[in-house]
Amino acid sequence: MLLGKVVGTVVSTRKEPTLDGSRFLLVRALDQECKPTSTLVVAVDAMGAGVGEVVLYASGSSARQTEMTKDRPVDAVIMAIVDQVEVEGKLTWVK
Amino acid sequence: MLLGKVVGTVVSTRKEPTLDGSRFLLVRALDQECKPTSTLVVAVDAMGAGVGEVVLYASGSSARQTEMTKDRPVDAVIMAIVDQVEVEGKLTWVK
Amino acid sequence: MLLGKVVGTVVSTRKEPTLDGSRFLLVRALDQECKPTSTLVVAVDAMGAGVGEVVLYASGSSARQTEMTKDRPVDAVIMAIVDQVEVEGKLTWVK
Amino acid sequence: MLLGKVVGTVVSTRKEPTLDGSRFLLVRALDQECKPTSTLVVAVDAMGAGVGEVVLYASGSSARQTEMTKDRPVDAVIMAIVDQVEVEGKLTWVK
Amino acid sequence: MLLGKVVGTVVSTRKEPTLDGSRFLLVRALDQECKPTSTLVVAVDAMGAGVGEVVLYASGSSARQTEMTKDRPVDAVIMAIVDQVEVEGKLTWVK
Repeated sequence: MLLGKVVGTVVSTRKEPTLDGSRFLLVRALDQECKPTSTLVVAVDAMGAGVGEVVLYASGSSARQTEMTKDRPVDAVIMAIVDQVEVEGKLTWVK
Repeated sequence: MLLGKVVGTVVSTRKEPTLDGSRFLLVRALDQECKPTSTLVVAVDAMGAGVGEVVLYASGSSARQTEMTKDRPVDAVIMAIVDQVEVEGKLTWVK
Repeated sequence: MLLGKVVGTVVSTRKEPTLDGSRFLLVRALDQECKPTSTLVVAVDAMGAGVGEVVLYASGSSARQTEMTKDRPVDAVIMAIVDQVEVEGKLTWVK
Repeated sequence: MLLGKVVGTVVSTRKEPTLDGSRFLLVRALDQECKPTSTLVVAVDAMGAGVGEVVLYASGSSARQTEMTKDRPVDAVIMAIVDQVEVEGKLTWVK
Repeated sequence: MLLGKVVGTVVSTRKEPTLDGSRFLLVRALDQECKPTSTLVVAVDAMGAGVGEVVLYASGSSARQTEMTKDRPVDAVIMAIVDQVEVEGKLTWVK
């Protein structure tokens, strides 16, 4: 998984029928200081995440292991909201 | 998934038999401002996308989770046409 | 998939038994102008491609969706010979 | 797999139900001299690894091939604690 | 697959039980001239490869398509020993 911050939303009305009701969020990957990196992904939201929130997202086939994404053409899913990140004894993110 | 822009087409008459009828599109990945990046992929079109259109594409095994790509040697599929991208309250793409 | 050009061959007599008879080709990925990039891969040839030919190759589990590669330890397969690439109305490759 | 060093922890109370009880560790990939690289991942800990420990982690669908991660939205797992790394006759890590 | 050179070994006594008996090798990816690149991976050895040997390795789920790696948390496997690499008519590796 990667640490990410939700930075925006993507709206699509014409999409694979199995994706009806899916919410697409723009997520920027974070480094261990929880600073944004250049990596950007569009993930399906399985957690009710909001813009600005720090999350974990899973990629590849693992992104289909939630009820919302099973058997769907989805390669990234938000599967956790992050409360706290601790790096070598220092908190770099607290919700 | 990644945001992408359809920039061209690839024609192949000699291909895996299961791919007969598949349409191959050249897609350039976009950043959050919907500006082209250096990432280029050839995706199967499951949505009837046209050149110039902004789309979402899924990669890896997730690219095989559409009727058009199931059980085929396809690792990228266009699974949505994008209407709108919003980043931190600002629209960076409107169809 | 990625556009690629076959640039060479790899010979191996000691290999996984399920790979007996497989042909390994060195493929260099191409950009949209069909110029070589720095990405290099060894792909199994499912199409009878020759050195110098422009092809499409699929990666990951999708590379196992051909009769020649099914259930084998193969993560890249040539699944199409490219006749023509067109980018924004300009042909960048014609066979 | 990649060599990695555990550098921190990620706490999440709101997560996919199947992940209850999973421990998320921040892992920095290492080069052959066991020096940290820029690659950072959040992996589920299947081995009881501690911060500062050198480990191996597996990515993608292979990360779901442990009892702790099976059928869960997990794309990286720590599956070994490293005792020793030897490169061209020289030990670069000894536990 | 990628061309690689075995540069070292990784020893682990505490690992996933299904990996007992697996041999972990440090492999550096090679370019078409068979010169080392910066890409480093730890692969399970399915071929009895030795340090210094030039090999092919498969990544991702394809790495689990050998008897030694089936259903195990392994994302890279050495599945061939390379005898010869030929690039545009020139041999860049002969065993």
